[in-house]
Amino acid sequence: MIHLLNSRSKNGNFFISLKSILGFAPKQMMFYRRAFTHPSFQKKDSFGQPLNYERLEFLGDAVLGSIVAAYLFEQLPEADEGYLTKMRAKIVSRHTLNEVGKDFDLVRLMTADVHQSQFGENIHGDLFEALVGAIFRDRGYKYCKRFIYKKLITEYVDIERLDGKILSYKSHLIEWCQKEKKNIRFEDEEDTGREEMTYFATRLFIADKLVAKARSTSKKKAEEKAAQRAYYKLKNLINR
Amino acid sequence: MIHLLNSRSKNGNFFISLKSILGFAPKQMMFYRRAFTHPSFQKKDSFGQPLNYERLEFLGDAVLGSIVAAYLFEQLPEADEGYLTKMRAKIVSRHTLNEVGKDFDLVRLMTADVHQSQFGENIHGDLFEALVGAIFRDRGYKYCKRFIYKKLITEYVDIERLDGKILSYKSHLIEWCQKEKKNIRFEDEEDTGREEMTYFATRLFIADKLVAKARSTSKKKAEEKAAQRAYYKLKNLINR
Repeated sequence: MIHLLNSRSKNGNFFISLKSILGFAPKQMMFYRRAFTHPSFQKKDSFGQPLNYERLEFLGDAVLGSIVAAYLFEQLPEADEGYLTKMRAKIVSRHTLNEVGKDFDLVRLMTADVHQSQFGENIHGDLFEALVGAIFRDRGYKYCKRFIYKKLITEYVDIERLDGKILSYKSHLIEWCQKEKKNIRFEDEEDTGREEMTYFATRLFIADKLVAKARSTSKKKAEEKAAQRAYYKLKNLINR
Repeated sequence: MIHLLNSRSKNGNFFISLKSILGFAPKQMMFYRRAFTHPSFQKKDSFGQPLNYERLEFLGDAVLGSIVAAYLFEQLPEADEGYLTKMRAKIVSRHTLNEVGKDFDLVRLMTADVHQSQFGENIHGDLFEALVGAIFRDRGYKYCKRFIYKKLITEYVDIERLDGKILSYKSHLIEWCQKEKKNIRFEDEEDTGREEMTYFATRLFIADKLVAKARSTSKKKAEEKAAQRAYYKLKNLINR
């Protein structure tokens, strides 16, 4: 059995990492343990169901869909149901959920019986959905809604971008800096770290202040990711 | 403009009919008025959105999906995510929702600019979803959950039947009565009422007590519907 968080066996560390992701203290740990157990792990519960995240992922997917639908319904009073449906599909897309799960580095909390390289591309989004399911079972609808607003919607959802109005955060940010007469600078460096692949780490400075950091498999991707993060941080300023 | 509830213009009647369907007093009537306005009705709101049920239907569909998912997750601890997905699809199917909407006779509350015959088959389910959306906006998640449990799940959802174990309520009920040595009797009569079509009305007696009534376009359908209602009333006795 492989514990990806080395000290997962020490309950304390799993709890602390989880709490920092959630932003509140989890109560019924069994839901979260299950949310972070890979299907390769063979143990079953007393109902004969495999002790893994798949049932919670089903629940989380449904809860996420309804909370995002309610958010869009309120935020976009001028949108018809076709537009609402389209926007929701973009927000709960595999692409977005994988990104969120990756940024939280959810796989590090996982228990599995196979190596991380066998998890597949969508593991990050699956874990995020399972986590939403666990929060719903542990603390109910309101906590779940608050979590999704704080961790998904505020950080990743930009209706303008989803609507195709922003294609590159990097060029969007550069334009804005030119208009505002602020200098903007990307500092990239190769970062081999523990992994076999080479990564690029980017630090983005605006007016000589470090605004965002990102890491990806190419310089271009890392810069775009850093620009996106900077954009969300400065959104209120930029869209003023 | 056609008001299907003749006295819809008198606010009181719409309110009373609605309250009896909901099982609680609605607060913000605007959501319910919109939930019962057909797209043929041309008025728009201050955001330029047509004043009809389509946006609320989008919301209600999502909320319904998550509440039914959470119900199944709790009720079926022994089911895997594939089975949960299948069961949910059956419960929120057009067929079931149309049946519920029809039984509540939701179209009678509708405002439209076309004749009822032009509404299409799925109007009943659409209205039920829009009503769920209106409840969610008016009173929030908890009321919505209670409404769906009481009006949809308790009355229409039988996991055994959805799983294909009960094919006909009528034969299921007859068998049970034979086993329990109770006499069972269907009384049918033609019922032309106001409509152009002929309907059949069935009254179902068990041990000479009236247990359920139903009305449909054929005798067979009316008897099956009455048997289904009787089954749900007696479910606890039958499955003892």
